Amino acid sequence: MPEKRSKAAQPLFNRVAFIGIGLIGASMALAMKRNNLAGEIVACARRDETLHTAANLKIVDTTTKDYRAAVADADLVVIATPVGTYRDIAQAIAPHLKPGAIITDVGSVKRDAISAIEPHVPDGTHFVAGHPVAGTEHSGPEAGFPELFEGRWCILTPTDKTDKNALNQISEMWRKIGAKVETMPPDHHDMVLAITSHLPHLIAYTIVGTAADLGEDLKQEVIKYSASGFRDFTRIAASDPVMWRDIFLSNKDAVLTILQRFSEDLSGMQRAIRKNDGKALEELFTRTRTIRRGIIDAKQA
Amino acid sequence: MPEKRSKAAQPLFNRVAFIGIGLIGASMALAMKRNNLAGEIVACARRDETLHTAANLKIVDTTTKDYRAAVADADLVVIATPVGTYRDIAQAIAPHLKPGAIITDVGSVKRDAISAIEPHVPDGTHFVAGHPVAGTEHSGPEAGFPELFEGRWCILTPTDKTDKNALNQISEMWRKIGAKVETMPPDHHDMVLAITSHLPHLIAYTIVGTAADLGEDLKQEVIKYSASGFRDFTRIAASDPVMWRDIFLSNKDAVLTILQRFSEDLSGMQRAIRKNDGKALEELFTRTRTIRRGIIDAKQA
Repeated sequence: MPEKRSKAAQPLFNRVAFIGIGLIGASMALAMKRNNLAGEIVACARRDETLHTAANLKIVDTTTKDYRAAVADADLVVIATPVGTYRDIAQAIAPHLKPGAIITDVGSVKRDAISAIEPHVPDGTHFVAGHPVAGTEHSGPEAGFPELFEGRWCILTPTDKTDKNALNQISEMWRKIGAKVETMPPDHHDMVLAITSHLPHLIAYTIVGTAADLGEDLKQEVIKYSASGFRDFTRIAASDPVMWRDIFLSNKDAVLTILQRFSEDLSGMQRAIRKNDGKALEELFTRTRTIRRGIIDAKQA
Repeated sequence: MPEKRSKAAQPLFNRVAFIGIGLIGASMALAMKRNNLAGEIVACARRDETLHTAANLKIVDTTTKDYRAAVADADLVVIATPVGTYRDIAQAIAPHLKPGAIITDVGSVKRDAISAIEPHVPDGTHFVAGHPVAGTEHSGPEAGFPELFEGRWCILTPTDKTDKNALNQISEMWRKIGAKVETMPPDHHDMVLAITSHLPHLIAYTIVGTAADLGEDLKQEVIKYSASGFRDFTRIAASDPVMWRDIFLSNKDAVLTILQRFSEDLSGMQRAIRKNDGKALEELFTRTRTIRRGIIDAKQA
């Protein structure tokens, strides 16, 4: 639960800059405001429409298209754009960071995020790589809501270079907006997320793509009868295309590794069906139920 | 919306027998009672526990383990067991059916269901094959609820042998418990459902199986961070194992055909990632969004 604070208390950060203000950035900004964690919040984005929405919905205090103006005097800079933009952004903001500033990110891939940002972080400023495991299939600042992170995990992936105090401050920020914080090595994060998130998205995109390639009449019927299972995949496959393109390219090794295992298992299923091996099918379908039970027990259902 | 009827009106069927009383059978029984469509409802099942639950929850009026007692005097017999049991059940009940009785089923596969039942239907009785496209991941009579079919499709797959009056009565029954009724040829049904339901379930079972085969530590982490996509697959993969075993074996041809297409598409994705083809990925991920929009527009989201 987010901590209650009197408005008079000193905010955790005087000025916070969001580079990118989509679902995650907007939800963080709203949650930080509600919990008095930021004195002032500025959003920087490339598209006018995004900035207008963020301003009109009072998600942030000010907006700018200029990196320099955004990060000047910022105590915290949150990079919340697709992972493929990280390197350019890190280079662009580096010269303008205030001494002592903390940079963090929210990307779903951590090894590549770190290698894109860490080399550009100036001495006297700090980078803490993070990933809130939360989201919806909606995109854009208008999709943001301050409760998004409540009860969800935020994984921080510190490296040898990560400053302990900066790590503690970022942990505190996430806890105060309702998240449970865990730390792990970047490579391990990328493998766990390849299984729990990247492969499920890849498969959902693929099956919806398979349906999209059907003839028009059959496609309309698939939509009509989608409640029988297909529908759940389309929700996942409605997630932001650019963000997901970058995730697959940035976490290529782990995704291809787990995809290989999945393909082998799928071939096994194909063989079981072809050979009428009902015993093998029933055995697997019974085993998968225990995983569901584990998720319900872990209160993640 | 289910039609309101005064309790004094004549029910559509005087006596209804359910062979099998799981999620679908129980939901039908509850909905038929609520809408005064059945004078008396009897459930027949193999397991004592199932019958006790159905009786204790007042889902049906009487219970029996004897097919003969169940179908004697029944105007409607609903077969609501896994598809693999159909042939034996049809043979067992055939000699005891009352003249004019209608048999229907609720199986997710229609060609095999028809070939298992139709040859055994005695002259003067009628069979109407049906499939309500509705369900949850829960099983058993205790999972049933009378609103399950409201606003959902029920597909009837008449053959050359199907009696028009019997077809009309079964259509009326489904409409009165809230479903929208559609008819189509059995083979076409099996292909549409292979895409919308059977393949999604097969894939969900497979990916959850892939996770179940991971080492214990990694498996616990997958459960912990399942909210990032994996969770949605586990819900689907918690469905009844025996029912799904029978579906895959009964709809083998259509499932293997669509699985082949999916596997080719998945190989294409694998290649795009390996070759860093961001353009192909983004293009597909954008195209899949339009299918989601179609489902929302069709009010099936």
